[in-house]
Amino acid sequence: MEAQRLNTGMLSLTEDECLRLLATDDYGRIGLVVDGRPEIFPVNYALDHDRSVIFRTADGTKLASTANHPVVFEVDFVARATRTGWSVVVHGLAHHIQTVIGGPRPLSPWLSDRPYTVRIQTQSVTGRVIGPRPSQLDGE
Amino acid sequence: MEAQRLNTGMLSLTEDECLRLLATDDYGRIGLVVDGRPEIFPVNYALDHDRSVIFRTADGTKLASTANHPVVFEVDFVARATRTGWSVVVHGLAHHIQTVIGGPRPLSPWLSDRPYTVRIQTQSVTGRVIGPRPSQLDGE
Repeated sequence: MEAQRLNTGMLSLTEDECLRLLATDDYGRIGLVVDGRPEIFPVNYALDHDRSVIFRTADGTKLASTANHPVVFEVDFVARATRTGWSVVVHGLAHHIQTVIGGPRPLSPWLSDRPYTVRIQTQSVTGRVIGPRPSQLDGE
Repeated sequence: MEAQRLNTGMLSLTEDECLRLLATDDYGRIGLVVDGRPEIFPVNYALDHDRSVIFRTADGTKLASTANHPVVFEVDFVARATRTGWSVVVHGLAHHIQTVIGGPRPLSPWLSDRPYTVRIQTQSVTGRVIGPRPSQLDGE
């Protein structure tokens, strides 16, 4: 039943490594508390110059629940064949904003009907790796 | 700034389609409320015969926060190049269990130090698609 490789542990990423991984991706998931219950919504995002996560949303649950509330944001990559991968988790406060400062990659929503912009003001960022170090962190 | 394709909408998946997608994958993310704040943890999982999601955990935040509490569980796939993909979200109650009934794929944790088993008793499952229908739903 356990013929596949069993990894014996995880390595932690530094905050700088986490931010570099966040800057190279554009798709993650926001976790909210709505009426006391947890919710997860996939979003596409950009990392702003001030380390905040920016995404667009339609008017609805996501919008109401992110107004000045603590949220969590997660990005990951897994290679199922080798059972390895990495994940980065941001904790922060969400705010509605009018203007995006702009970061290494501009925010470019996948869906057209997302008029509202939300910023997650990063309070902490942590990350973990199972298996090899992410290739995005090589070089420089 | 918006030169890439902008999708104009999402399609919903049926419950049966969501369960078929859940059965073909083994990696997702659990969303919890811990001390009133949202948390997301990546987990590898299996779908049990009774539509519940099974995963292993070490003793810690995940374990304490899943004891008879509402949780959310999310699985997705995205093709960043075409900005398309699908996501499935399960809402349910988490319980600690001793024995796994067994499903189409056995639970096979990626990490060795995960002695506790948690079952999410599915209350609802919803899913959305941006772009083409997931290939896992073809045929049969």
